[in-house]
Amino acid sequence: MATYNPFKKFIRPKTETGVFSETEVNLANRNSGLPLESLEHDVTPIGQHYLLIHFDIPKLNQADHIISFTGDFFNPYTLNYRDIKKMPSQTIPVTLECAGNGRSSMEPRSFSMPWSYGAVGTSEWTGTPMKALIQRAKPKSDVINFIFTGADRGFDSGVEHNFERSLTVEQINNLDVLLVYEMNGQPLLPQHGAPFRIVVPGWYGMASVKWLNEIQASTEPFQGYQQVGTYRYRQKRDDEGEPITSMKVKSLMKPPGIPDWTSRKRIVSSGQVDLMGRAWVGGGRQIIKVEISINGSWHNATLDQDSSKYAWKKWSFEWAAIPGDYIISSRATDEAGDIQPLEAPFDIGGFANNSVQKTHIFVRKAEQ
Amino acid sequence: MATYNPFKKFIRPKTETGVFSETEVNLANRNSGLPLESLEHDVTPIGQHYLLIHFDIPKLNQADHIISFTGDFFNPYTLNYRDIKKMPSQTIPVTLECAGNGRSSMEPRSFSMPWSYGAVGTSEWTGTPMKALIQRAKPKSDVINFIFTGADRGFDSGVEHNFERSLTVEQINNLDVLLVYEMNGQPLLPQHGAPFRIVVPGWYGMASVKWLNEIQASTEPFQGYQQVGTYRYRQKRDDEGEPITSMKVKSLMKPPGIPDWTSRKRIVSSGQVDLMGRAWVGGGRQIIKVEISINGSWHNATLDQDSSKYAWKKWSFEWAAIPGDYIISSRATDEAGDIQPLEAPFDIGGFANNSVQKTHIFVRKAEQ
Repeated sequence: MATYNPFKKFIRPKTETGVFSETEVNLANRNSGLPLESLEHDVTPIGQHYLLIHFDIPKLNQADHIISFTGDFFNPYTLNYRDIKKMPSQTIPVTLECAGNGRSSMEPRSFSMPWSYGAVGTSEWTGTPMKALIQRAKPKSDVINFIFTGADRGFDSGVEHNFERSLTVEQINNLDVLLVYEMNGQPLLPQHGAPFRIVVPGWYGMASVKWLNEIQASTEPFQGYQQVGTYRYRQKRDDEGEPITSMKVKSLMKPPGIPDWTSRKRIVSSGQVDLMGRAWVGGGRQIIKVEISINGSWHNATLDQDSSKYAWKKWSFEWAAIPGDYIISSRATDEAGDIQPLEAPFDIGGFANNSVQKTHIFVRKAEQ
Repeated sequence: MATYNPFKKFIRPKTETGVFSETEVNLANRNSGLPLESLEHDVTPIGQHYLLIHFDIPKLNQADHIISFTGDFFNPYTLNYRDIKKMPSQTIPVTLECAGNGRSSMEPRSFSMPWSYGAVGTSEWTGTPMKALIQRAKPKSDVINFIFTGADRGFDSGVEHNFERSLTVEQINNLDVLLVYEMNGQPLLPQHGAPFRIVVPGWYGMASVKWLNEIQASTEPFQGYQQVGTYRYRQKRDDEGEPITSMKVKSLMKPPGIPDWTSRKRIVSSGQVDLMGRAWVGGGRQIIKVEISINGSWHNATLDQDSSKYAWKKWSFEWAAIPGDYIISSRATDEAGDIQPLEAPFDIGGFANNSVQKTHIFVRKAEQ
């Protein structure tokens, strides 16, 4: 009986604010966040981009791995690495953020990977546009969805499945989805989806399926676990909810000065302190403002307009620091007027917490 | 008053078994463990080696960074990247493990980075032997220690310091310490100590100072925080303790089958299951035996003897799996007769937990 399922009766454990289980800590050991000092870099250095790996990293071979176009296509076909390398390539800097980023400080907190701030990173992704690959396979006229299947398989909430997500025909036409084989100019690393993944610019990371095996055209709404069982905005567990798509407006600050090892509180010397960080938003919007709060008093930061369409923007602020004890936050606003909240919006799954980061800083008198 | 120190009154928080604070979870977000499925690889893929970063990753420039030999040398000198690249190079596969690996399951648990199993990795380190570099600087006859100083600076337990560790004259003569500038054939990544670090083969990771700035010859015992304030075996906080040096005998298993996303428990199909993993020990010793416990019944695994002196050894075991519910462990023995304990030995700092890993596995009947 291959239907035996010891995880079927999974009951999501209750959590308590500020108190974490060993299971959550194990997940935080395994999945890795951006060290926040690396917000300094326009492009996140190799090995520092966040990693959220639901199941295990599959062991796939670039030389013989095949992507299959299946389902309701008139012209189903397969692609291997040599085929794809012959196609037109694009390199796009894209900021990806995990939809669960910020979950650890939400109240109440959903039992899952307890991300603090670091589930974000920006890479230069190289690949070939997905839209043309799908057109070549000639989807039938009643196709509404394309299902992207990864090689990674396991259980979530008692459901056995390969990681799978779908995008609609309209989304494929309007988003610059890329079939990716390089990251920062190097072949994709195993943990980032080698040999092939997709990147969906502007969306939270769950849409950017790794270890891509198959692209299936479908005339039905997709009911896969990762599409309807999770990654939806819900106020209660049994709500149908709304799908999570593009990234909400958000910003982070590179913590200034030097840290205390465990608390990560900071010490800086008085005088001019150059604060900097990054701000981003999805949905094709642009960031238009970043403000800095010094103990609750807000000031405008300078925003670098040079970044490309899908990458975070750099902001900077010269702080005349006087000895004392500070909480500093940054707050971004996008062109639609959306602004980061001061406190986390509630979501039962702990998704899309875009509330402001709070950095605790002590200023000491500079040596004369 | 640059002596202002808000962390001076640091009191290490009490911990409770199986319950973790947000501070510990933040540390686990920032520091990253090996995904255990990567025990498959002889050499840990780039970006998957564990990272324990006490302070911030310093931003150093390979082109102009200088290492200074200072203190009680007759011939103090400096080295830059071009100098070092002209010297004889060695490439050594070395397994590094964090001394805090396994802390999360210790009872009582020390408040620090709550490592579960993954603070280990094996890389091919390329550099030039430290012994000859030190000889060239001609240490004075009464020198007893060499102090290795990193560029990373911060507070630990209220003490402000750069990360610094010392090795004795005898240790420099007997350990194959390497001044490293490449890892797995690529220039060192920033998070692994770029442009220069040392690697002390066979020792826990704290000795392998990253972001190396200075090598100081000293005629005094070294009293730096990372040498005497921590990284010592202690039963009580105020014990003088014994320095932590070489890695204790240990082994891990690659979890077989497929996982449940949160609990990381596993499902495999009945029949032959190829179990494998790695075993290692420091102190110049060799692993001579690995045993596998299937629900408490021990069996000998096959040990691969091909690995190099300082790298973990591969073990394998063919398990005839029958449907049911299992806890599987591996247990290594070294040539001195040291063997992994079944339960964690107590240490107040949560160091050197080499007790056996416990993997929970469900076997279901294979499909016919």
